[in-house]
Amino acid sequence: MRLSRYFLPVLKENPSEAQIASHRLMLRAGMIKQQQAGIYSWLPLGYKVLRRIEQIVHEEQIRAGHIPVLMPTMQSAELWQESGRYDAYGPEMLRIKDRHGRDMLYGPTNEEMITDIFRAHVESYKSLPMTLYQIQWKFRDEVRPRFGVMRGREFFMKDGYSFDLTREDALHAYNRHMVSYLRTYERMGLTAIPMRADSGPIGGDNTHEFLVLAPTGESEVFYDSNVTDLTLGDREVDYDNREEVEAICKEFTTLYARTDETHDEAIFNEVPEERRKSARGIEVGQIFYFGTKYSESMGAVVQTPDGSKVPVEMGSHGIGVSRLVGALIEANHDDKGIIWPEGVTPFHVGIVNLKQGDAACDSACDALYAALVKAGLDPLYDDRNERAGAKFATMDLIGLPWRITVGPRGLAANKVELTSRRSGESEEMSAEAAVAKIIEIYAPHR
Amino acid sequence: MRLSRYFLPVLKENPSEAQIASHRLMLRAGMIKQQQAGIYSWLPLGYKVLRRIEQIVHEEQIRAGHIPVLMPTMQSAELWQESGRYDAYGPEMLRIKDRHGRDMLYGPTNEEMITDIFRAHVESYKSLPMTLYQIQWKFRDEVRPRFGVMRGREFFMKDGYSFDLTREDALHAYNRHMVSYLRTYERMGLTAIPMRADSGPIGGDNTHEFLVLAPTGESEVFYDSNVTDLTLGDREVDYDNREEVEAICKEFTTLYARTDETHDEAIFNEVPEERRKSARGIEVGQIFYFGTKYSESMGAVVQTPDGSKVPVEMGSHGIGVSRLVGALIEANHDDKGIIWPEGVTPFHVGIVNLKQGDAACDSACDALYAALVKAGLDPLYDDRNERAGAKFATMDLIGLPWRITVGPRGLAANKVELTSRRSGESEEMSAEAAVAKIIEIYAPHR
Repeated sequence: MRLSRYFLPVLKENPSEAQIASHRLMLRAGMIKQQQAGIYSWLPLGYKVLRRIEQIVHEEQIRAGHIPVLMPTMQSAELWQESGRYDAYGPEMLRIKDRHGRDMLYGPTNEEMITDIFRAHVESYKSLPMTLYQIQWKFRDEVRPRFGVMRGREFFMKDGYSFDLTREDALHAYNRHMVSYLRTYERMGLTAIPMRADSGPIGGDNTHEFLVLAPTGESEVFYDSNVTDLTLGDREVDYDNREEVEAICKEFTTLYARTDETHDEAIFNEVPEERRKSARGIEVGQIFYFGTKYSESMGAVVQTPDGSKVPVEMGSHGIGVSRLVGALIEANHDDKGIIWPEGVTPFHVGIVNLKQGDAACDSACDALYAALVKAGLDPLYDDRNERAGAKFATMDLIGLPWRITVGPRGLAANKVELTSRRSGESEEMSAEAAVAKIIEIYAPHR
Repeated sequence: MRLSRYFLPVLKENPSEAQIASHRLMLRAGMIKQQQAGIYSWLPLGYKVLRRIEQIVHEEQIRAGHIPVLMPTMQSAELWQESGRYDAYGPEMLRIKDRHGRDMLYGPTNEEMITDIFRAHVESYKSLPMTLYQIQWKFRDEVRPRFGVMRGREFFMKDGYSFDLTREDALHAYNRHMVSYLRTYERMGLTAIPMRADSGPIGGDNTHEFLVLAPTGESEVFYDSNVTDLTLGDREVDYDNREEVEAICKEFTTLYARTDETHDEAIFNEVPEERRKSARGIEVGQIFYFGTKYSESMGAVVQTPDGSKVPVEMGSHGIGVSRLVGALIEANHDDKGIIWPEGVTPFHVGIVNLKQGDAACDSACDALYAALVKAGLDPLYDDRNERAGAKFATMDLIGLPWRITVGPRGLAANKVELTSRRSGESEEMSAEAAVAKIIEIYAPHR
């Protein structure tokens, strides 16, 4: 993309309404525009990041054997009356009457609707195990929306629902989700720690939240510092192998890591003192096993091998897709702006032309741009008539992890400059070498 | 995907509520489930088709230089009061009060919000031309929703908005949209004819609808039969070249083609009688040039080169993404089921194992499946313990354009059978040759 043809409305001033870095930087970098309290438009740069995150979530869900569907945002009140949650859910539920006076709502979550789909179509244990998931917009009418997309009212979320015959099968689905989530966050360059959590209004025996450590997090968390060293890395996982999946879960959940809701001082004190940490965390996902809570109230039963009928064992598992954009920035920024991890960056590399209009610089930039596009990469070329300082400031603000700077002095020696946004380090090399380096950097992310 | 692990709830009976083929077949093929009148869940097969269509629309919009954004579904009433449409829009607008009693609505279209984004961020003609588009869910509270996703209440639509300094520039944007739409529909295997249309409540000087001929269409259309022979084909289009783009539009709009709203009997009668046709059509898109209707009422002005300020020239341009799923089926089906064009098929090829459990058949199917996946294709392997007839009926119903049948008799001669869903013709060949043929067939669609 050439910046002269793009829509990137960066702000020079810090927006006064933003209390935290991610909100401020998303507004300043032209990623979002607030339309109402807690409701945002995603401008081109923000939309690109949202889609990259969505894509990673899809890929990892599909890798785990889960099947994508899409449910409507508008739901009938009747479904929620069946489960008993229509009355239980407070004013956070956006309630609507259609033109015929029928009660509807904007789905804040989808346990009822997915259970309705299941009971309409599945009769036998032979169809199990099955996990259906969607990535769809949801609405919670927060009384005080804040922190930008981190606690918005309309938000984009992956919600997956597992259906199994037995409790053991359902716990395997739970574990499968945990591992797929670990992999999802790692691909985004995030450390998200699974922590024992409280089951809250959805109810359930077993639940973990995934938390990203950040000073602006809403939850207080307590953990053994060794837990932040754990990584899944690039090991191959066979999601059908229960022992393998369970072993990974054990590896990631044995060390102490809890939110304030489940924190237990006595157990925590068994952790060696120098590894005992407390910090703030941002919740970016949660997995639940809740058994037959919805299948019983809504009559979602399956036939067992012996011919009897039992309510299906269920779990629900969520990743906050739009919230992750904010969480990623909270975990990756400095005074100058955002620093995107390679896995989610809106553009792979920025090209800065130091002397727009100079024939040699322009043609070198054009050639660089063409070579990157040909390699399947997505560069952003700042081809505006602006001084170098302004171009650098924009690149630093929007946070592309790599920048190639092209100027007359370097070109005379057949060099361009490749700069890392994170380290700030620059290296001079030929344009061809820079392209080769960028290709190599992104190879693991494609 | 192995069918034994998929969720494909096909129905044996014709659903009584469905009046037209696409609605009936989408229900029977397990593509959708109705949740309320005019509101559907997209089950795995339907979701895949919806995403393929979405992807083609994105690709062609980006090729034309248009920039994706995403606006929220919930809009504030205030914006619509500014344009005057809050009162003008009838009961089709879903109106909502949030917990603080503020008036909101579920966006049926987005002229107001995009104009709000524009006026907040764009000040100079130097930022123009600009076209922003989104693919997002919308809601129209139809009094009598019908025909499945063809006239639903919650629907998925691409809506694009062009901003230009002059009327001439805006007409180029109009033309650019027309050409990009022609290309979009052709890639889906659809013939959609641009027809002069009535501007209706959005208002405007210049508007064309794109209609797919189908007996179940809601509009009556009149056309010169030669118009159905026009194709864009694989010519390269330079979307910045006004003359080239305009010439293509002329080529596609010179022959008589109008909906009943703009039909003119006198002009129609100048068409040679044997080419004069009337038929039914399904609207799958519409482009509008409406000038300064919204920019004036909402104060979206830009500075001109001479320093004065003028309201920006606008157009809005839509493609019915969820509706296209229905339209594609209306145009591509037979008594046995759907016949997907290669460009939008949910799976590229079906594999039918005639003797599940037979070691030779199973391993031949596994190898075939692996070879197709390795080639980047997406096969659906019917690995269920069902008789051949049931497997063939399912494949015919869900409409994959190609089927590879593997059975013991063929395998003894080292052959599998490749069958075209459209022609019904089969050919025996080696498994390797079948894979090569499928790769070749899909090469233009990747």
